[in-house]
Order: sequence, then structure tokens, then C-alpha cells
Amino acid sequence: MTVTYSSKVANATFFGFHRLLIKWKGSIYKLLYREFIVFASLYTAISVLYRYFLTGSQKRFFEKLSIYCDKYAEQIPVTFVLGFYVTLVVNRWWNQFVNLPWPDRLMFLISSSIQGRDEYGRLLRRTLMRYVNLTSLLIFRSVSTAVYKRFPTMDHVVEAGFMTIDERKNFDRLKSPHLKYWIPFVWFGNLATKARKEGRIRDSVDLQTLMNEMNRYRSWCSLLFGYDWVGIPLVYTQVVTLAVYTFFFACLIGRQFLDPDQGYTGHDLDLYIPIFTLLQFFFYAGWLKVAEQLINPFGEDDDDFETNWCIDRNLQVSLLAVDEMHMNLPKLDKDIYWD
Amino acid sequence: MTVTYSSKVANATFFGFHRLLIKWKGSIYKLLYREFIVFASLYTAISVLYRYFLTGSQKRFFEKLSIYCDKYAEQIPVTFVLGFYVTLVVNRWWNQFVNLPWPDRLMFLISSSIQGRDEYGRLLRRTLMRYVNLTSLLIFRSVSTAVYKRFPTMDHVVEAGFMTIDERKNFDRLKSPHLKYWIPFVWFGNLATKARKEGRIRDSVDLQTLMNEMNRYRSWCSLLFGYDWVGIPLVYTQVVTLAVYTFFFACLIGRQFLDPDQGYTGHDLDLYIPIFTLLQFFFYAGWLKVAEQLINPFGEDDDDFETNWCIDRNLQVSLLAVDEMHMNLPKLDKDIYWD
Amino acid sequence: MTVTYSSKVANATFFGFHRLLIKWKGSIYKLLYREFIVFASLYTAISVLYRYFLTGSQKRFFEKLSIYCDKYAEQIPVTFVLGFYVTLVVNRWWNQFVNLPWPDRLMFLISSSIQGRDEYGRLLRRTLMRYVNLTSLLIFRSVSTAVYKRFPTMDHVVEAGFMTIDERKNFDRLKSPHLKYWIPFVWFGNLATKARKEGRIRDSVDLQTLMNEMNRYRSWCSLLFGYDWVGIPLVYTQVVTLAVYTFFFACLIGRQFLDPDQGYTGHDLDLYIPIFTLLQFFFYAGWLKVAEQLINPFGEDDDDFETNWCIDRNLQVSLLAVDEMHMNLPKLDKDIYWD
Amino acid sequence: MTVTYSSKVANATFFGFHRLLIKWKGSIYKLLYREFIVFASLYTAISVLYRYFLTGSQKRFFEKLSIYCDKYAEQIPVTFVLGFYVTLVVNRWWNQFVNLPWPDRLMFLISSSIQGRDEYGRLLRRTLMRYVNLTSLLIFRSVSTAVYKRFPTMDHVVEAGFMTIDERKNFDRLKSPHLKYWIPFVWFGNLATKARKEGRIRDSVDLQTLMNEMNRYRSWCSLLFGYDWVGIPLVYTQVVTLAVYTFFFACLIGRQFLDPDQGYTGHDLDLYIPIFTLLQFFFYAGWLKVAEQLINPFGEDDDDFETNWCIDRNLQVSLLAVDEMHMNLPKLDKDIYWD
Amino acid sequence: MTVTYSSKVANATFFGFHRLLIKWKGSIYKLLYREFIVFASLYTAISVLYRYFLTGSQKRFFEKLSIYCDKYAEQIPVTFVLGFYVTLVVNRWWNQFVNLPWPDRLMFLISSSIQGRDEYGRLLRRTLMRYVNLTSLLIFRSVSTAVYKRFPTMDHVVEAGFMTIDERKNFDRLKSPHLKYWIPFVWFGNLATKARKEGRIRDSVDLQTLMNEMNRYRSWCSLLFGYDWVGIPLVYTQVVTLAVYTFFFACLIGRQFLDPDQGYTGHDLDLYIPIFTLLQFFFYAGWLKVAEQLINPFGEDDDDFETNWCIDRNLQVSLLAVDEMHMNLPKLDKDIYWD
Repeated sequence: MTVTYSSKVANATFFGFHRLLIKWKGSIYKLLYREFIVFASLYTAISVLYRYFLTGSQKRFFEKLSIYCDKYAEQIPVTFVLGFYVTLVVNRWWNQFVNLPWPDRLMFLISSSIQGRDEYGRLLRRTLMRYVNLTSLLIFRSVSTAVYKRFPTMDHVVEAGFMTIDERKNFDRLKSPHLKYWIPFVWFGNLATKARKEGRIRDSVDLQTLMNEMNRYRSWCSLLFGYDWVGIPLVYTQVVTLAVYTFFFACLIGRQFLDPDQGYTGHDLDLYIPIFTLLQFFFYAGWLKVAEQLINPFGEDDDDFETNWCIDRNLQVSLLAVDEMHMNLPKLDKDIYWD
Repeated sequence: MTVTYSSKVANATFFGFHRLLIKWKGSIYKLLYREFIVFASLYTAISVLYRYFLTGSQKRFFEKLSIYCDKYAEQIPVTFVLGFYVTLVVNRWWNQFVNLPWPDRLMFLISSSIQGRDEYGRLLRRTLMRYVNLTSLLIFRSVSTAVYKRFPTMDHVVEAGFMTIDERKNFDRLKSPHLKYWIPFVWFGNLATKARKEGRIRDSVDLQTLMNEMNRYRSWCSLLFGYDWVGIPLVYTQVVTLAVYTFFFACLIGRQFLDPDQGYTGHDLDLYIPIFTLLQFFFYAGWLKVAEQLINPFGEDDDDFETNWCIDRNLQVSLLAVDEMHMNLPKLDKDIYWD
Repeated sequence: MTVTYSSKVANATFFGFHRLLIKWKGSIYKLLYREFIVFASLYTAISVLYRYFLTGSQKRFFEKLSIYCDKYAEQIPVTFVLGFYVTLVVNRWWNQFVNLPWPDRLMFLISSSIQGRDEYGRLLRRTLMRYVNLTSLLIFRSVSTAVYKRFPTMDHVVEAGFMTIDERKNFDRLKSPHLKYWIPFVWFGNLATKARKEGRIRDSVDLQTLMNEMNRYRSWCSLLFGYDWVGIPLVYTQVVTLAVYTFFFACLIGRQFLDPDQGYTGHDLDLYIPIFTLLQFFFYAGWLKVAEQLINPFGEDDDDFETNWCIDRNLQVSLLAVDEMHMNLPKLDKDIYWD
Repeated sequence: MTVTYSSKVANATFFGFHRLLIKWKGSIYKLLYREFIVFASLYTAISVLYRYFLTGSQKRFFEKLSIYCDKYAEQIPVTFVLGFYVTLVVNRWWNQFVNLPWPDRLMFLISSSIQGRDEYGRLLRRTLMRYVNLTSLLIFRSVSTAVYKRFPTMDHVVEAGFMTIDERKNFDRLKSPHLKYWIPFVWFGNLATKARKEGRIRDSVDLQTLMNEMNRYRSWCSLLFGYDWVGIPLVYTQVVTLAVYTFFFACLIGRQFLDPDQGYTGHDLDLYIPIFTLLQFFFYAGWLKVAEQLINPFGEDDDDFETNWCIDRNLQVSLLAVDEMHMNLPKLDKDIYWD
Repeated sequence: MTVTYSSKVANATFFGFHRLLIKWKGSIYKLLYREFIVFASLYTAISVLYRYFLTGSQKRFFEKLSIYCDKYAEQIPVTFVLGFYVTLVVNRWWNQFVNLPWPDRLMFLISSSIQGRDEYGRLLRRTLMRYVNLTSLLIFRSVSTAVYKRFPTMDHVVEAGFMTIDERKNFDRLKSPHLKYWIPFVWFGNLATKARKEGRIRDSVDLQTLMNEMNRYRSWCSLLFGYDWVGIPLVYTQVVTLAVYTFFFACLIGRQFLDPDQGYTGHDLDLYIPIFTLLQFFFYAGWLKVAEQLINPFGEDDDDFETNWCIDRNLQVSLLAVDEMHMNLPKLDKDIYWD
């Protein structure tokens, strides 16, 4: 899951954030060291070429080229393009997190609405709960590469206990050219109605509360699916990437240290290592990496959502809540503030 | 539908986004190659004119003009205007996607609330579902050019099975100078009330849950309609377009390579190909294209919503759910974690 | 109503937005041509003064003044001030549109909840519906100048059929120093309760659904009222206007073409027509116009909401739906996909 | 209450906003004239000092200092800091307005749900309504200085008729170290339950609708309280204020007209009155004033919310609605469009 | 809790915000004085080194280095990076505040829905209320360092009266590899269902209102947990910190006063104290501190939420409301406006 560091910055202290600069996992260094090496190598190569291999007039030409590139590098509005774009990506990423489907609200309702501690009652509750988990699993399979790797076929879904063999058959029998993740929810509705008819659900108020909650769960699922389906338009991402790459390309040439003896303005000094350009590389490329990481939070990055963990947690917890814990209450005792 | 590339960027990898730069469908290149050719041709024409056709004093005048244009090109705040504008457009576009009407929530409720597997029960469920699909079709017809092409008249709607002939007559009989897409929802309400009276809907709780869900569906439809009806004010779009076009116009002249021998500042080099100006063209014009694509997501762009597909999917899936699948349950089996 | 152009930009095509640049209705040209003429005339006047009437030393002074003005014109952050301000105005404008009260949700509920096709039943439904329309009319009267012109007194409201004479008397009899637009909703509640007692509304579930929907309608109304009552603070609008006007004032002097013979930097060229300054005028003044148009969307601009049309549409459609269409159903027929 | 000017800008007209520039109430001039006088006096004092009192070498030093200050004044990012900060403040301010508690929704429900026109019924409805008003009064007292001045003690609350003496005693008897504004809502719940038991509220549906609406009211109250309690962090406000004040401090010295004879770049002209700096003062200080005005909208500024007026309006209107108007209906008449 | 200053700025007065500049608690000075001392010392050290210890040629080198650093310091887009980042942090911080779980809504419902003033009724209400408080305590323990310090083990939770010993055993008996904060809510559901069966809760409407409200509470809890679990990606924070630190590092060298005799542009003056750089330090570092303070609002900063206080208040108030105040009503009296 995401790299948590909030406890490290709970209090604003002396140079508080500087401790974050030395983390590795999920850090800018881990994400960027390869690009950095490439960038630094190219810079060095060009520098060596300029210093040792070019003839005098070639040097003069290169110097003019360098100044030309530098001028344009400054004109590229990388900051704003990245600012607007990353804001968009971060908002989408957070909305996806907020819409991860958790079955907790449903499990409380199922546990309290479906009567009967006998086997049939247990079966009803467990099956309803399973349908809920099955739906989100089907969604996660199409959204998350990690989940898809774990459940490449429906057989794996059955084996993992999210579906019985009979359900699998019923599922396959329904012919539709479209995605079928909504099917378990029709079963859910049918089974709840059946339970209502048999008196396991007391009245329509209980039933409709359950149906509404189920629909809320479905909305989370479909919103998640929607975020995967309709991404940020490719053009926007290309525009941003192009701007950043152009900037770095211009820097490779334009930020070379030119011969101070030639007397170009702003080129009085030859430091060999372009410290500020390298730092700029870190924060512009780092900013773009923020976008790269968050644009699809269902991959296997350090900062991605651990959907496989969610799936396991949800199944385990929800079955526990509706079965073992159903009507299982601690003894009612007076609390210590009683009169 | 939109061009999906999120699976390509699931993990943030070595120069992760660069792979996106070489896609064609929905890409900046496909969208911009024509404008690019025009821009490059004009630039070349002016360049040729300057280099080979102008007399000495004309050249001097052109050089001054070029420097003048260049100065103002830099002052045009294309970045910010585009930043604010595209943010607005992207938000509207996403809200339209989120408000696409999906009948899934309603179909679960109809399947579980309307009793009876006999022919009359089936008829009730299918008809209610059809009314829902009919409403969104009527909205889509006025919102989406693609849908309008497919259903140019109400006859096409009847033929496609969204409406019966008797409904068509009833629909036409109602005289109103205003749009009539709300009519099927009055029918929906009337039919549900009828079902309630005949005991097919058990009580007011079931009925009102259905009515509330129907109203939610209607709100999606009317919001979609609203987005089409009341666009971003024309002036805003014109302001942005004007800024971008002015910028490129100024670039055509101002970014010419002037004769290095004249010794103008910043004109020491003649590269013939204005590489950075061309790249700037790509990302400013590309950014504007983002807006053009998203300002009306119901057209036929690579990135537009596939409304015709939605219409088919919704009808097919919703009839399936309320009819064939009504009270159709897989056998209740103990799951593999039982005890 | 607003100028619709979305169908024109359904597909992103070759130089897609350029077609928008040649529209007149609701366009930047129509909105700005008068200001443009004033600006251009003043510029010309100053230019003529400088060229033909000033003596040598006056010219020198004017040239220094011009350079001074130009320097400060560039420092005025018109772009950002406008960017932040217009974003605020656009958000408020859109929220006002989204909160326009439409009676559709209520009319579906009234049609399905209030029983009886006899005269009394019709009277109940029509009266409830009328109360709803009356409330929004009262709100619109205080919000929209166009509506106020059409209904300057309560007599006009009665004449137009939104209120009966007896209601008018009852309304006037209630003494309150405050606005009374909430009164019809108290009547609504009372009448609905009466209908509930007489069995025309079946039970509390139906009644409360109606009351909740009515309250939602009221919230739209009062939010609309709130947007009118509490505008963007005057100071903010003044700050923005001041910035823009200062900028143009500085441009009038600072963007004059100075005598090239005097050799001022950046003044090598005398083009007579300050093409870029005029374009800048168009997009800064145009951007401000966006704000002017949207800050009160209930006026009579090309882009304002057509509230009078809404009022008529809502009354006509809602009476139709609850009366003529009540329990009026097309024949139930099997659809073409049946089995 | 806030200064309303929206009707003045209903239509976008010829130089539409310029009329706003000449308003006084709530205007930038009224808010800033004192600061402006101070700023202008200081500027003049420094100018006089430089021109008449400094010796030659002191003048040379001052000139260098002035150029130094001017250089840094331009580097201070006042625009952005203000842009981001004011956006935050404006959003908070608007949310506070939207969450002002209005009892209208509750009064419709109370009027229609609590039966009986006899004295006891009236007493029930009036008392419930009073509890609601009392709660918001208690909140307003701790949020708004204006309201606190009017009701400095609980005695004033009792005297104004929001509380009876017996309620006051009961209220005081409850010992709690915490704020007690929630107490009237417990009474509300208890009284509603009592009414339900006595059959004055028909069933649980009516009761729970009332309770939900009451909870919604409470959420408005507590959100308002939250906005007062947890403001924008002091550091943020200090950062912004510091940036603006530093800027003006730098301007005082850096924007002096230096002796043109010394030939400093950009100092060819001595205008005595620094017109652009004064205008800049107006719009930066004005922008900061926007924040100052809105950061606490419950004071006594021209633009603050008139909470005392709200309190009176709410009590008067809500008692009227639940008592005098209870089941008071105009005669049911056919409207003029009947058949 | 947060430092409240809103009453100090209720009215916009003469230089209104300047009073805020002299506060200490929660102020920029308190937060930054240590960093400021470090920065100023380093600056002084470098200055002394340059002035007294370097040889002539070393001075020349240092001067070139200083100019080089200064040039790049200006290019670092600290303002924007901070603007976008702080906006993000502030939004998250406010959402966390808004989602703090308050039991008030639930306590009103429990007090009015659970019948019986006898011991069993009291026990029911108190126990339900305790479960609610227990859940938020469990969440707070994992979110807030301050709360964790106070309740380091479950024993402390039991001792503080949030849990009985029997509940503790039951809680421990449930084996799950996942967090168990949802368990008290299953108990809540079970106990409410029990109360419904025993007639203490009248019907399903009352029960489901309670369950819905409980689910709302749970959503607040889990959202709070989510904000802690999934923070702003580390990379983003690192990018911002890196940009600010790089800027200050560049300033240390680049903002030194160079020997005026060397005639470098913009270095005509030696003031010894770099007043503007120090002010810049205050507002950039201060802006970053805003982020540091708000990124985890559950620490022990001056501006952090006082969660321990919340926990006590909630338990005390909610037990009071559901027990002592249950059906405890002041005498019904006519208010002073009666007739």
C-alpha cells in the first residue's frame, strides 16, 4: 500500500520535513535514480564532447546553440503545466481511494436484518455477503493488474471461494456481449426478496435499507470502473510529458558550462557539475513521477493501493461479522460511570 | 469510447510516460498533424520569402518586425489562460461522465420489488424498464450527434423497440411546445402506482424507493441535458482561442531566424528549423485540443463517450435483469469457508 | 437563453475552434465593440497628439512617460487576478444553473401519490402543483430583473393564474416584515396533510416522500435567493476592475509607437496600428466580460438564463403531468424483444 | 448584510463594471482610505527627505538603496500568495453562508406532522420550534460578536423569549464542562417522542422525518461553530500579511522618483506622484481587504452576515408558520387553466 | 486545539491584519525561530568568510559563484510549487476536521428511540452509546499520536470505562489478522436488533434510522482512518521540500553582498543585513510550515486537533444525553409571544 509517513510529521518541528528527504521506500530517489543516471550521463557525454573533441569553430557553434537552448528552456512553462496537471491527477487518485468499496456498512445491516441463527439463516447471510464480495472482485479484476494476475480466470475466482460451482454455471449461462459484474447484485436482490417472503427479513423497511446500501456499494464499484475506463485524455498527458521532456532536452545542451574565456554573459564560471540543473531535474521529473504513480493507483508501485489485501480483508471480515458474530453480544454490564 | 491507456502506466517505471508519446490513436499527433503542417508551411513560406525574395531594406524592416513580434509573443499569457480554461473544461467533462444515466440501480429494484413470474408480472417489469431506457434515449438524441444520426426520427425509436406504437401515439397526442422527454417518467409513475394498487408492489416503502430511484435517474438525464444546453460561455472560449491564435501568429514572424550578420541580440545562430517553436506549437495547440475534445464529449472523437454503445448495453442488460433473471437464483450452497 | 455552440464543436477537427471566432451572437465582438471603439479612438487621439501637435521637448517628455507607463503596464498581474476571479464567478454561475428549481421530480410524485381522477382529486393535484410554481415565481421575481418586469405587482401574478384571488387575500393577510415566499409551502404542507387525512394520500411514507421533495425544491429556491443576496464582495470586483482598467490606461500611453529616430530600445519600428495591444485588449477585456456576463445570470444578456421561459414551461408541463396525464397509461404491450 | 450590487450588473453593458467603481458603501475606498493616507504620507515624507534634506552623498546612497528595494519588490510573489489565499478564504466564507441554519424546512414538517389545533397542539408546535431557534441562537452567540453584544448573558436569551424560565433552570442544572448548545435538541427529541406516544405525531415515519431534519439543522449549526473554532492556521495568514506588508515597505523606498540627472536606468522621469504605485497599493491592499472582510463574516463589517436580523426573522416566521398558519388553507378553487 | 484568532479579525479595520503579526502562540515566529537562527548564522558565516578570510582571487571566484547562484535562485518556482501543494494540504486538513466523528446525531436518536426509563432501558442506551464512543476511540488510537500515548494498550481503554472486561474478552476472542475497530459496530447492530425484538425500539423505521446514522458515523471514522493511511504521496512532499531547500541553499551564497568596488550589476550597495532575503525566508519557510503543521493534524502542534479533549467531551456529553436527560423535559409553558 501507500508509503505512510504521516506519523513522522505529526508535529511540526525543527526543519520538520528534512527527515523525509532521507527516506528510500517510495522516495523520489528510488523512483528517479535510473532517469537521473541517464540524464547525468548524457550531460557528461555532451560536456566531454564539447571540451575535448570539438574544434574551435565547432565550439563556437556549440556555444551559440547552447545559449539558444538555454533561452528557450526558460520559456517552457513546465511549472504551470505540471501544477495544473498534477492537481487533476491527485484529485482523481484521491477520489478513487474514497470510492474503494468496503462491505462494512452492508455487513452491519445484513447481520442485523436477516433473522435466524440456524443453518438456513447463516446460509442466507453468508451468501448475500459473498455476492457483495464477488462483485467487487469482478471489478477489481478488470481495474487492477495485480488482482488480474492473481485471478486470471473465473476458475481462480471459484477456487478462492468467492463463487460456488453452481453460481459459476449460472453466471456463464447468461449470454451478454457486455461485462457481467452486475449479475451477483441481481442475485442479491432476488435472494433478499426471497428472504423477505420467508419472513427472514421482517418488512419492506429492512429490505429497502439493504437494497439502498447495496446500490451504494454498486455505485462505488462502477465509479471505480469508470475511473479506469475513462482516463485523463491521452492528449493531456502527452502535452505534459512533451513539455517536461523538451525542457530537459533543452537543458542538456543549454545548461552546459561554456568556456569562460569567451566572455558570454552568465558564463563566467565553470563548475563542471551543474548542481542546480540536477536539482531541477529532481523536482520537475519528481513532480511528473507523482503523476505517473497516481494516474493508475491499481498497479504495483510502492504507493499503489493494495487491492489484493483489500479483497482478502473484506471477505474474511464480512463473513466473520455476519456469521460468527451474528447476535453474539458481550454481557450487558453497567459501565463505570453508572451513577 | 475514450482511449484507454491506464494499464500501460499501471506502474511508474523507467521514463514511464515516454511510451505514451509513441501512441497514435487519440494522440496529439493524430489530432494536430494537419494544423502542424499548415503552421510549418506558413513558417517556411515566410522564411523563404525573407531569405530569397526581400531586398536589403525590406529585410531590415522584416527583422525589426520580427523582433517586435517576438517581444509580444512572450507577453501573451497563453499558459495561464489555457491552465484555467482547461481545468474548467476537464471538470465539466468528468461531471458529464459521472452523470451518464445507468439503469443498473433501477433494474435491481424493479427486479426485487415487482412480484410475479407470470406474463403480467414480466410485462410490468419489462415495460417499466423500457420507459427508463426510453427517457435516456430521448435525452441522448438531443445531446449527442452520434445518437441523433442513428435515431433521426421517432420512427427509428419505435423500430428499435424502445417504444411501442401505442405509446408513440399517446406521446404524440400530448401537445406541448416544450421538450417531452419527461413523459415516459409520468407513465413510469402511473404504472408503478397501478402495480401498487394491484398488489404487485407490496407497499409504499417499495413504491417510494422505486420512485426516488427513478427521480435520481431523471436528475442524471436532466443534468446531462443542462450541460449540453448551457455550455461554457462563448466569450470565454473565444478569449482563449484568440490568445492561442495570436500567439502562433506572432510566432510565425517573431520566431524566424534572422541574419546572424546583422548582430541582433539572441540571433547569433541560424538553425533553419525552429525546433523549440515547433515543440511549443505541439504543447500549446495540444493543450487547446484537450479542450476542443472534451468540450463536447458526445461527438465522434476518439476520446468521446460511446453513447450508442451505452444505449444498447443498457437496454439489453436491463431487460435481462428484470425478466430472465427475475427470482432466478443459483442453488444456495455452503461456501468453502463454512466452519 | 445561453448561446449554444456545443454541437458546432462536437468533434475536434482541423483548427476546430476557429469557426467559433466568427460567430456574432453572444460573441466577444458584440460585447466589446463599443469599448473597443472608445479604446481605439483614445489611442489614436494620443497618437495624433504626439505626432503632430507636440513640440520637440514635449515629445521627449511624452516619450519618457510612455516608456514609464509601458514598464508598469507589464508589472500589473492582470492575468492572475482575472484567472482567479473568473474561476470564482464561473463556479457561482454554474451552481446557480444547477440550482434552478424544476418541478419535474415533484410532479411525478404528486401524480403517483394523490389518488382520484374525480374533480376533487384533480383539484388537489393542480393546487399543490400551483403552490410549487408560485413559490419559484416569487423567488424569480426578486432575483431576476426580466421576471420582475413581467410581474411587477402581485396582481400580475394573480392574473397569470399562479394564484387565485382567495389565496392572494390570505397571503396579504399574513403580516410579516420579512419576505413571504415560504407561505405557499406552508399551504402545500397543510394541503398534503389534509389529503392524507382524507385518504387521498395513502400513508405517511407517501406523504413524507412528498414533503422531502418539497423541501428539496425549497432549498433550490433559497439557494438561488442566497446567490442573489450575497454576491461576490464588492471589494473583490472593484480590485479586479481597477487592475484591468489601470492596465489599459497604462497601455494607452505606454504602447504608443515612439519616433524610431530617438533610438529607444524596442522602438525601432513604427507600425501605426498597435496590433498586439488591440488583441490584448480583446482578450483581457473579453475575459472581464465573461465575469460581467456571468456575475448575474438573471439579466437579459444573450448568455443569461431565460427565467421567463422556465416559468411558463414549468407551469404548463407540471399541470399537464398531474392532471391530464394522471393514471393515463398507454396500452401495455409486449416489446419487440419479448422472448 | 452584504452590500448587494448584482442588480446593477444584471446586464453586461458598455464598460459595465465601471459603475461599480464609484460606489462608496462596502467599497475599496471606504475600506482603504485610512491605510492609503498613511501610505501616501510616508511616501511623501521620504520623498521630501530625499529631495530637500539629504546631502549629495546621502542622496547617492539613498538612490542605491532605492534601486535595491525596487529590485526586490518585484521579486515578492504577492499576486500568487494572495491568489491562493483569497481563494481559500472566499470558499470558507461561502460555505459559512450556505450553512447558516434556516428553520424553514423544519417548520413545514412540524406544521404538517404535529396534529391538533387545540391549545396543547399549538403548545407542542411552538415549543419544538422554539427549541430549534434557541439552538441556533446559542451557536450564534459564540460565533458572532454582534449577537454576543445583544445577548451577553442567558438572562437576555430568556427575556427575548427564546427560553422560558423553567427551561433556563433545567439548562443550568445540567453540569457539564463543555458547551451546552446541544441540550435544546435533546429536549426536541424527547418532546417529539412524547408527542408520538400521545398520538400527536401519527407514526414513526413522521417522527423520523422530523428527527432527520432536526439533525440536519444541528449539522449546520455545528459546522458554523467549526468554522469559527478552527480557522485558517494563523501561520498562513501571517505569511500572506507579511508578504504584502514587505512589498509595500519595499515600495516606499524603491518606487521613489530618483534624480533623472543621475542617469539611472528607468529613472528618466520625475512625476512626483507615483500613480502606478498608488494604484498597485489599491489593488493589492484591496485584495488583502477582501480576505480581512471575509475571514470572519460574523462581525459588523458592511459585508458581514446580519445574524441578528436572521435570528429575529427565523423566530417570527417559524412561529407564524407552525401556529397561526397550521392547517390554515386558502379556499380550494379551480385555477384559470382548468380545462 | 487550533489557535483561534477569528474574533480578533471580526471587523476589517485600519491595517486589520497587522495585529496578527504580533501574536506568538501558533505564530510563524514560534514555529520558525530555530530555522531562522540556523539560516542567519550560516549566512553570517559565509559573509564573514568572504569578507575577511578569502584571498583576492578566491573572492573573485566566490563573487562569480554568488552571481551564478543568485541567477538560479530566481528560476526556482518556489511560489507555485508551494501554492499548489499547500492548497492540497489545506483541503485535506479541513476535510479531516469536517469528518471528525461527533456522536451528537446518534445520541439524539438513541435518546428518543429506545424506550424505558427503567434500569434495562438505561443500560441499553448507555451501552449503545458506549459502543459508538469506543469505535471512535479505537480509530483515534491509530490515527493520533496524542491519543495513542494516553491509551497505549487495550487495558487503558478498559480502565477509562470505554469497554467492560467482558467486552474486552469477547473482543480478543475474535481472531482476525486485520484491524478490529468495526467490532463494536457489529455489537451495536446486534444490540439494536435485540432491543427491536424486545419492543424497546418500536418498529423498523426507528431501527433503520438508527442503523443509518451509525453507518454515517462509521464512514466518518473510516474516512479519518483513510486520511491517515493514505497520505499525500511521499514524492510530492519531497519535491516541494527539495525545491524550498534548494532555494534557500542558493540564497545563502547568491544573496551575499559583494564588494561594490568590483562593479557587478545590482551590487552597488553593501547593507550587511540582507533584509529582503530574511523576509523571504520567513514567508517561504512559513508557507512550508503551514503544510508541515496541517499534513498531520493529529499531532501535538499548537494548531492540531485536540483529540483527547474530543474523546472526553463525547463520552461525557453522550452518556448525559441518553441517560440523565432521557425523557427529561422542562415544563411546557406558553412562550412570551403567545397570542
